[in-house]
Amino acid sequence: MRKSLLVSFTLSLALGGFSQNGQSKKLLGFTENSSINQLEAEAKFDSYLKADHVGQLIKEMSARPHHVGSPGGKAVAEFIFNQFKSWGYDVQMETFYVLFPTPKTRLLEMTSPTKYKAGLAEKPLAEDATSGQTKEQLPTYNCWSADGDVTGELVYVNYGLPQDYEYLKRLGIDVKGKIVIAKYGHSWRGIKPKVAQEHGAIGCIIYSDPKDDGYYRGDVYPKGAFKNEYGVQRGSVMDMPIYPGDPLTPGYGSTKDAKRIDRKDATNLLKIPVLPISYHDAEPLLRSLEGPVAPEDWNGALPFTYHIGSGKTTVHLKLEFNWDTKPINDIIAKLPGSEKPDEWVIRGNHHDAWVNGANDPLSGQAAMLEEARAISELVKTGWKPKRTLVYCAWDGEEPGLLGSTEWVEQHADELQQKAVVYINSDGNGRGFFGAEGSHALEPFINQVAKGVTDPETGISILERRRQVDIVAASKNSAMAKELMGKKTIHIGALGSGSDYSPFIQHIGIPSFNLGFGGEDPGGEYHSIYDSYDDYRRFKDPSFVYGVALAKTAGHTSMRLADAELLPFDFKSFYKTVAGYATELIASTEQMRENTAIENKLIQGKFYKNSIDTAEKLLPPTPQQEVPYLNFSSLQNELTDLEKTTNHLSEAIEKAKLDAAKEDELNQSLYKAEQKLLTANGLPRRSWYRHSIYAPGFYTGYGVKTLPGIREAIEQRNWKEAQEQIEIDANILKEFSDYLDGIAKSIQ
Amino acid sequence: MRKSLLVSFTLSLALGGFSQNGQSKKLLGFTENSSINQLEAEAKFDSYLKADHVGQLIKEMSARPHHVGSPGGKAVAEFIFNQFKSWGYDVQMETFYVLFPTPKTRLLEMTSPTKYKAGLAEKPLAEDATSGQTKEQLPTYNCWSADGDVTGELVYVNYGLPQDYEYLKRLGIDVKGKIVIAKYGHSWRGIKPKVAQEHGAIGCIIYSDPKDDGYYRGDVYPKGAFKNEYGVQRGSVMDMPIYPGDPLTPGYGSTKDAKRIDRKDATNLLKIPVLPISYHDAEPLLRSLEGPVAPEDWNGALPFTYHIGSGKTTVHLKLEFNWDTKPINDIIAKLPGSEKPDEWVIRGNHHDAWVNGANDPLSGQAAMLEEARAISELVKTGWKPKRTLVYCAWDGEEPGLLGSTEWVEQHADELQQKAVVYINSDGNGRGFFGAEGSHALEPFINQVAKGVTDPETGISILERRRQVDIVAASKNSAMAKELMGKKTIHIGALGSGSDYSPFIQHIGIPSFNLGFGGEDPGGEYHSIYDSYDDYRRFKDPSFVYGVALAKTAGHTSMRLADAELLPFDFKSFYKTVAGYATELIASTEQMRENTAIENKLIQGKFYKNSIDTAEKLLPPTPQQEVPYLNFSSLQNELTDLEKTTNHLSEAIEKAKLDAAKEDELNQSLYKAEQKLLTANGLPRRSWYRHSIYAPGFYTGYGVKTLPGIREAIEQRNWKEAQEQIEIDANILKEFSDYLDGIAKSIQ
Repeated sequence: MRKSLLVSFTLSLALGGFSQNGQSKKLLGFTENSSINQLEAEAKFDSYLKADHVGQLIKEMSARPHHVGSPGGKAVAEFIFNQFKSWGYDVQMETFYVLFPTPKTRLLEMTSPTKYKAGLAEKPLAEDATSGQTKEQLPTYNCWSADGDVTGELVYVNYGLPQDYEYLKRLGIDVKGKIVIAKYGHSWRGIKPKVAQEHGAIGCIIYSDPKDDGYYRGDVYPKGAFKNEYGVQRGSVMDMPIYPGDPLTPGYGSTKDAKRIDRKDATNLLKIPVLPISYHDAEPLLRSLEGPVAPEDWNGALPFTYHIGSGKTTVHLKLEFNWDTKPINDIIAKLPGSEKPDEWVIRGNHHDAWVNGANDPLSGQAAMLEEARAISELVKTGWKPKRTLVYCAWDGEEPGLLGSTEWVEQHADELQQKAVVYINSDGNGRGFFGAEGSHALEPFINQVAKGVTDPETGISILERRRQVDIVAASKNSAMAKELMGKKTIHIGALGSGSDYSPFIQHIGIPSFNLGFGGEDPGGEYHSIYDSYDDYRRFKDPSFVYGVALAKTAGHTSMRLADAELLPFDFKSFYKTVAGYATELIASTEQMRENTAIENKLIQGKFYKNSIDTAEKLLPPTPQQEVPYLNFSSLQNELTDLEKTTNHLSEAIEKAKLDAAKEDELNQSLYKAEQKLLTANGLPRRSWYRHSIYAPGFYTGYGVKTLPGIREAIEQRNWKEAQEQIEIDANILKEFSDYLDGIAKSIQ
Repeated sequence: MRKSLLVSFTLSLALGGFSQNGQSKKLLGFTENSSINQLEAEAKFDSYLKADHVGQLIKEMSARPHHVGSPGGKAVAEFIFNQFKSWGYDVQMETFYVLFPTPKTRLLEMTSPTKYKAGLAEKPLAEDATSGQTKEQLPTYNCWSADGDVTGELVYVNYGLPQDYEYLKRLGIDVKGKIVIAKYGHSWRGIKPKVAQEHGAIGCIIYSDPKDDGYYRGDVYPKGAFKNEYGVQRGSVMDMPIYPGDPLTPGYGSTKDAKRIDRKDATNLLKIPVLPISYHDAEPLLRSLEGPVAPEDWNGALPFTYHIGSGKTTVHLKLEFNWDTKPINDIIAKLPGSEKPDEWVIRGNHHDAWVNGANDPLSGQAAMLEEARAISELVKTGWKPKRTLVYCAWDGEEPGLLGSTEWVEQHADELQQKAVVYINSDGNGRGFFGAEGSHALEPFINQVAKGVTDPETGISILERRRQVDIVAASKNSAMAKELMGKKTIHIGALGSGSDYSPFIQHIGIPSFNLGFGGEDPGGEYHSIYDSYDDYRRFKDPSFVYGVALAKTAGHTSMRLADAELLPFDFKSFYKTVAGYATELIASTEQMRENTAIENKLIQGKFYKNSIDTAEKLLPPTPQQEVPYLNFSSLQNELTDLEKTTNHLSEAIEKAKLDAAKEDELNQSLYKAEQKLLTANGLPRRSWYRHSIYAPGFYTGYGVKTLPGIREAIEQRNWKEAQEQIEIDANILKEFSDYLDGIAKSIQ
């Protein structure tokens, strides 16, 4: 589901704790001797991986559209089931029953000043073999749009973010009772109708502007990879930052007989209709708008002056959906652990797509299947994982992480006992290694990445990523020098947008999201053009990055399955969180200063005097001054946490444990992340319980670290911010105490 | 000629020396008593200024095209002559005879892969009364293009700057023997063919992309102010950074009988043909280009993917010109000083235009004429300037500052004796006050600006500009706070682009360039649409900013004409130059660090590993490491200069002088700027002699401060940089000695 896995460049923090010289020495979690065995097993595993298998799997599974509830979807699930079965896995198809709306009526027309009826159809292309399977394709739509039949003045709202409405307010433009048209991009799509609805809009159109996703980026499909004028991005607009999964079964599994809430009570569903359209269909609407000229940073790449409206331009939007319940089929394939069968290393990737989904999700799914096949080959040679390996192929990810969320909710207690880690992947392509995840495993994943060779350059995927980060920072010499001084990379924090979300954010399972990208741009995302033909031209033509993902995720899984001592490094976690806190405190200071200056400028009429009087733009509204918040409890707990994590590391290093004690220690280590869950969840979205990582309420996929505090500050809710500081301080205290308890138990 | 006078926001330096409370107290250069008289005279002067006069003058003078050598041009010159005469000025028409090429043949056609013949014509519009005067209009062309008949592959070179060719080199694209097409913008236009020629191109096309100058900026003419698809920017491509004025008489006046050099020996003339075109004509050419996709920051706003070429797209460019000698008519109107007739306060604005020129130059010319008329009214009441006021209406500014340069060259010796200051204006519009000039007069011009009320806001033009600067800086809280802590503005340094250039840069006369803008954007510049109809809709509809300019320049002229002690403040000059030196030293440090990092990344193959292998982009070429330069002589001289300027200020404050001594002091003060001239001029362009300010060799209009040192460093010519440091240090030493001499002479 997520558009690009490639983590954005983030301020890198010193890692510490990871000073091994990579492959040649000891693996984290292993002795020197067991490291040798492990590396031998991994080398053998690698030798079984075949790029042409990956390509073949993508081709086979993308042969037909296979969205939720479709015959193609069922077929792909069965194909995967049979694959695992043939490889000797203990495999189950676990079915949930979820609400899944599909379009019944889709009508968009401009009724004034001229008539235009939107085509709402992507064009089959001779160059794309599966693009003509129109009967099986889901039409272009936003899943979880409300039913609606609305007519109103049209207003262009840029990307439809809160700050865009602040600008509209300065222009005296209110969207109440009107229909907004927003560009895709700069937030997860579901934020746009949510914010429109908050501002009183009665309908929302989302389109792909050629500046963000079309000819401005590069040649369009089929000449090049970018979105042509008819391409449309489908996608979910469920308010996932409230909760993902079946909207009717919040927090529990949507089994056949589970109790459903009423649809109108589902707090993550919109009340207004939403429709995605192509730039071909958007052009006449936007061209006809009058009213103020859009500011320059609102401009797209269509060849006219963008106006905001509203005025004579009115549109009629009519949408009706079949609100059916559909079965979704998760495939769960287990390879029981030889020593610790009740400790699970879980690996997952979804299998449902919006249409054919060669890239999203099949490129990741194919890599995972190839990984699982190679593991089965390894098993034939006598190797067995010490812990149980669990491969999961999720259904229903696209509409809202349905398959993974329902499974996690259904098995929450068992998972909180057994799950050591969840390792996710999704669409994958040519380029640079990207990793997001639990920071206690950052040194570990660095070591894994150091051991995988990049297919294009021959250097390690770690080193290539490190170099990419340094080049990206090279204009900032201080940051470049800092990065050059380190041999490791800093991994990103997990937001949302793929199936790791229920694992880490709902039940506190340490998680990873892994993949490759950055040399695979294009406009096929969630369109009929996400096809095998597109993939083999533009994404990963020789499928070698599918193999690279299989290696990376495979080594991650195998090492965590076999580690004698699980390689959690809470010093690394501490450093990351301390970095978040420092940055948050500094940005609050900056916010205070900026607000003070801004208010002075507003009150002194500086804005009024600086704005071109022809523009009829009001000055910004003064904002409440930022008070000094008391961060001391958080800071003190972080000071304690630093000591505790140092102490625990030393204790682990010195400990001489028998097998039972070691088991106990391992279990304590992998359950530690659960101690970071808050009892009541985040304000207004109790499903999200992780105190350190959450998707942003107004960004969607984008992560917010220390989300309770950070979002309260961003929303200028000072009382809540102070409460959240105390809540997080308390969680860190309990977390410290817990780690301290572990240290004591092994002394 | 210059597109926008509004000075860009520059790092502001503390002014010092200006702590008066503005109008209510003592004027700089006056006693408390004489200040009262002066302010009374200025108030009376203000009362004579009429906005409708300004509008009427613009309308009258823009009624017909009036470029160099045209009947309309002659008529405007005579009109101005007669105006001054009617107001009682001692007026002369001084004629020079200059080379002025006009088009004979203009042909641009695409010959492959398809045929397209460029229309090369702007469209008359019913909404624009003068746009249909096609017979009298100069066709669209770049003056000083070479004759040429060339056919070659077309290459898109972005803005045609040196760094664009560096990128082409990384793509393996050579323009040798090819024709380049560059966008207008990001440099003065003459830089584009100059750099193209340096790289071996045989022809150059310059077009206005709608992203920079068209629908992307706002509604197009006649609906809005921005450039429509047929609009073309004419303009000079003389290599003015070498020398302006008649190319055949470098450094001396082009009087009727002056010796001319051979045209082929004129070092400021191009060898290749250049033609400006509209985006209507550019579109088919650009659309047909193949080869690499342009990087995102090269994109314009035409609705397709920009490619660089070269390949199948070939164009044929044929240009021939009439290389005629034309008379140009400067109008010089004097009002003799009552006390110091041999001290001249010179005020100027050009009168020639590319076509009708309502904005450029007539909005400034009309304001100057209204100023001169109001002065003549004041004279009727008995007021007389102490020093001589000289009003100059220049001809031939557009092709290359011809009228002003030839006049300055012709009268250089007299001017260096008599000229106290030169005050320039050019196109003027609604908005914010902008000033560039000699920094010893910065406190003075701040005080002038404090005494003029902004017509839209009712606050002073100084305060409005200050607020605009602060709002522009508001995202940078440190800079915003610094600016908020001061009541003054920092004026910009003079580059080139209008008639002040020969005064300040060639013969060291203290100069100003004054005007208003920022609420008058549009695309009429140098097109047939720079008309009265356009001006009164989009530029300064009620002509009140014409009056504001007349007031500002009028007060400036009157105060400098009447000041008992000329208000030069060399402490302010020192602070500005010290700021330039500090910034230059810091940026050299940064360049050293960036080069070191960049070279490490190149040598370590970081770039190679980070570049998408599908893009076939070579890594940058390593650059020579930046050595440590010895800035100490410059720094030591600046330390001395600080002491000297403090000392001089104290000495002036304490001095009790008789009239003769005061005259001597005044003359010493206004001649001081001449001490900043270098004996041999700047390297490779000896016409430019000012050591502190010059137009950039590769920017054109854009100023380079401490140009000898700065450009040597930018060009990585370390030997020359060190030589220039010593030259400038020596000049500052002589300047210090000179000021010291003044201080001693009045003790």
